Formats: sequence, structure tokens, C-alpha cells
Amino acid sequence: MSSSGEWQVIDRFFNHLGAVRTDVVLGIGDDAALLRPAAGMELAQTTDSLVEQVHFLPGAPPRSLGHRALAVNLSDLAAMGATPAWALLSLTLPAVDEAWLAEFAAGFGRLARIHEVALVGGNLSRGPLSLTVQLTGLVPAGTALRRSGARAGDEIWVSGTLGDAAMGRLPAASEALRARFEYPIPRVALGAALRGIASSCIDLSDGLLADLPRLAQASGCGAVLEVDKLPLSPALQASAAALSWQRALVGGEDYELCFTAPPENAARLRALAEQLELSLCCCGRLRPVAGLELRAAGGVIQFSQSPFDHFKS
Amino acid sequence: MSSSGEWQVIDRFFNHLGAVRTDVVLGIGDDAALLRPAAGMELAQTTDSLVEQVHFLPGAPPRSLGHRALAVNLSDLAAMGATPAWALLSLTLPAVDEAWLAEFAAGFGRLARIHEVALVGGNLSRGPLSLTVQLTGLVPAGTALRRSGARAGDEIWVSGTLGDAAMGRLPAASEALRARFEYPIPRVALGAALRGIASSCIDLSDGLLADLPRLAQASGCGAVLEVDKLPLSPALQASAAALSWQRALVGGEDYELCFTAPPENAARLRALAEQLELSLCCCGRLRPVAGLELRAAGGVIQFSQSPFDHFKS
Repeated sequence: MSSSGEWQVIDRFFNHLGAVRTDVVLGIGDDAALLRPAAGMELAQTTDSLVEQVHFLPGAPPRSLGHRALAVNLSDLAAMGATPAWALLSLTLPAVDEAWLAEFAAGFGRLARIHEVALVGGNLSRGPLSLTVQLTGLVPAGTALRRSGARAGDEIWVSGTLGDAAMGRLPAASEALRARFEYPIPRVALGAALRGIASSCIDLSDGLLADLPRLAQASGCGAVLEVDKLPLSPALQASAAALSWQRALVGGEDYELCFTAPPENAARLRALAEQLELSLCCCGRLRPVAGLELRAAGGVIQFSQSPFDHFKS
Repeated sequence: MSSSGEWQVIDRFFNHLGAVRTDVVLGIGDDAALLRPAAGMELAQTTDSLVEQVHFLPGAPPRSLGHRALAVNLSDLAAMGATPAWALLSLTLPAVDEAWLAEFAAGFGRLARIHEVALVGGNLSRGPLSLTVQLTGLVPAGTALRRSGARAGDEIWVSGTLGDAAMGRLPAASEALRARFEYPIPRVALGAALRGIASSCIDLSDGLLADLPRLAQASGCGAVLEVDKLPLSPALQASAAALSWQRALVGGEDYELCFTAPPENAARLRALAEQLELSLCCCGRLRPVAGLELRAAGGVIQFSQSPFDHFKS
């Protein structure tokens, strides 16, 4: 794509996308953006890509892609307890399709404004469809949530319901499940509220069975998970019936948070759930012995030593 | 690419790549990196992609790609006068080719260590080969160079020599020209040194004829360029002969800096050139009337009103 063409596309679709922030000294239009972080804050930085044929199929709705490209990054910052601030967008497009771009920008822009994220830069290339977002957020120094902060005895919690997005990918999915896949809700307010309460946190992008062991290992623990306590939506139960808990365990792209907290924080978490109007469900605990134990109705149904890889669906 | 596979690749090739920095609170391995910017600094952020078939051909040497993927971003920060600090890398690869990755990492890592850049995060996807780097740098608040700071009467300067990289892309290029294309040298030290001396700056990614008008327009000026003053390397002159100055004007990917300064700063710039052992060449000036005028041997050879687009090769 020629640079003058790139410029025009950026200007038309992306220059005024997202939130207006006073800490953006200079946005799109120079060699780099200039940003002024508030004193006493650390930066949290992440990047994630959506690639056609890998993360979405040809013909996927561009509004959903714009939403998801930002949401997966928002979810990473939520897992750190950071508040998102500034995004950069690298788009590789096979051609400039203005209708597609308008829809993509609408999905991206709406979510950016909800979370007060300014789009401060990016680039366009011609090539196979691919969307990469880089996101920077702010967190008071020393307070970020990490995967490694948990201790044996801490309880395992998850937000929302699990398994819906994976079911929502399927062609026959109900509208409710499809929405969970196409428009996942990153738990940004929850992540920030968990600072000082949770001992560790990870976002659920690959499914609890893949992501919980990452948290447990980073914290030097193993985990016991009570599968009949997993939070299942009515829509998932209607679709997957007796297989619902397996879907909840291995289904990816929910972008809920999985976090741990010492048992004495349970009351604060239940109060937080009410305040955020978001289900927070305690479904296990960490223990000193490595590996993941799954329990149902009080009995052990499966056990794995780390590194858990053979658990992956 | 499965997440466990992604993890192993990241760990093996990228976890210890780049510089070690004390302002990296948490690097690769959690949901986001945590970084602590020094007080009084603004952040400069940029991102750029290299896409196969667009920015490089299949079979391009991976060490060069690792270098270039970072260099193009370093050049953007240099143009702002910012000092680079933290990089994120998004790689989309058709397959995990360990020999390719080792070479890519070697090219990226070497340049990162030279400029004290820590690689703090990234992601891997399977798909058509594409390399996206996001880079954050630091600049004392209020001192960054912009495209928009120049005034009529300011002199136009360029660093190094122009046109070499574009010639270096050609199959028959000499070794010296090929090196300019495969291993461009971002002018990071120059950019930082220009704070307080230059009135505006842009990096030369698309060629002077495309990039200078961007600077001039952003500053509300036009430009007169003396083409016989353009800095040409002996290698370019040997290859392109009488067409050398056209190559210097339209050749892209030199990643030299083009900047402006009031005439009274010329002596400081000549001293800076000696100090950095880098050619700095004054080859024109800005004027109030819009458009770009090219002069050779004192006569006008071509003139364009803005927006200059028909000048693009």
C-alpha cells in the first residue's frame, strides 16, 4: 500500500477513533505518538493478533473482528489489574474495502470508547488479513496482579460463565452463545478491583484447563478443581447438556478472569460480585503438590502431573 | 499454534533476547509486561510491520529481517528524538523453523542490545509470514522532535547518504548497497542529539520526495531542494551514474533522518556531525509558499504544488 494511500485510510477511519485523553500529547500523524503517563504508575503492555484462517474464518463480521482485536488485549490488561490507556493498531489487508473498514472501525471504536482507550498510532500493509493490537495500560506501581502471587490454600475463582464462546463459534450456535464469541466482554473493572484482594490472576483465553495450570505453576502450586462448581450459562447447558462441564473446562476465548485469593477474602469477593453485577464463582483451591486434580461429586475424576500438556484438547 | 507450543518457542528464542533493563519490572511470561518509566519522561510509541511479498521476498535472509523489523521502529523513535526502551514482537509464521527463528532472533537481538532495548512481550501465530514490532521510547517531557516544528527559512538537512537501500534491493546490487538495504542503521543517537537544535524531523522510509513534503506540510511550509547537494555514496554513484540523484530522491528505506534547523544552528550541526562521525548535509530550505521546488545548478527543474502525490515514483 502506498504511503499516501495509507495516510488517507488512516485519516478517514482511524484518526478520530477511540477515546480522547488528556495524557495523549501527540496522536496519529507523526513518526510516533507522545504520551504522558501519570506519576507513580507502572505501564502494563501487551500485544495480540487475530489472523484469518487461524483466529477467524473468511467472511467473519468485521465489526466483531474490530471488537475482538481490542478485547483480547483489554483482557490481558484486566488480568494484570491495569487500566487501559493507549492502543496501536497494525492492519494487514488484502485490499482497501471501505465498507469492511467502516464496520471494523465501528467495532473497535465502540469498545475503545467504553474503556477510554485512545488509538494513538498504527500502520497498514497490503497482505493476507491480519489484525494486531498493542495496548498499554497504567497500574499504580507495585500493585499489579501477577500469575505468580498465589499460595497453597488460596481459593480459585472465575468470573462470569465458562465455555460459552467455544460453543458460540459453532455454526449452529444460539444467538446468546454466538454473542459471547463475537463480542467477548473483557473484565477490566473486575481486574482493577481485584488489586489488593486477589493473590494472582490470569485471563482465560485458552480454556481453564490450559490457563489455570499456568497460574498454578507460576505460583509454585498445584490445583484442585471442583468441576461441578464451574459456572455454566443456561445457554451452554441447553446446547451441550451433560457435556457442559467439559466445554467449560476446555473451551477457549471466554476472556473471563481466573484468580486466586486467600479464603478470608471470600466475603469481599462476594460483595464485589454484587457491586459489579458479575458472577464470581469459587471452584477450587491451590495446594502444595504439583499437578491438577479434577473432582466431581467429591471424587477424583482425573489427575495430571505438570506440565499438563496432554490435557490440551 | 497451540499455546504450549507458543510458550516453548517464546522461551527458547525470545525470552533472553535484547537488553536487560532495570526499568523492566516484569518481562515475558505473564499476561502483560510491567514497565516503570522514569519521572519527567514522555513515552514515544510506534509500530511497523514487515509482510512477506510486500516488504520482502520469500527467502529473504532471516537475520536481516530480524534487524529490519526492529530498525524501522528505532528509526521512527529517532525521528522523535526519543531513546528506545521496550519492544513487543508479533510474529506470524507458516511453521516453526528453528534455524530461521535462530537467525531472526540473532538479527533482532543484536540490534536490540546495541540500543539497550528489552524485548518485553509478544505473540506467535501460525499464518503467512509477517513481523510486527511495537516499540516504546522515552523523551524528556516537552522536548520531542515533531514534523510540525519548522518555520520558513529553516534549512533542510539529511543524515548519511540517500538512495543506497533502494539500489541495494536489486538482485545485481553491490555488497555495500545490499548491506544498506538488509541492515539499515537507525539514527538513534543523532535523533536524541537533535533535541534543542532541530526544529522538525522525519525519518526517510519512503524516500525524500515523499517524506520531505510531509514534514513541510505539517509545518505549514513549502520546500526548495537543491538536488546536486544530495549526499550520494560512492557505491550509488558507481551503480546509478547519472541517475544517482533521482535514486536519492525517490529511493525508500534509507532510514536516514531529514530534519530542519534555523541557519544559525548550522555550526552546531557541523560539530555534531564530527562528533557522531556521521555526514549531515544541508540540501535546501523551507519557504512560506507551499509545494516542493527542485533545483539543480541554480535552475528550477521541477515544481509541484502540494499535495505532491504525483511526485511519488
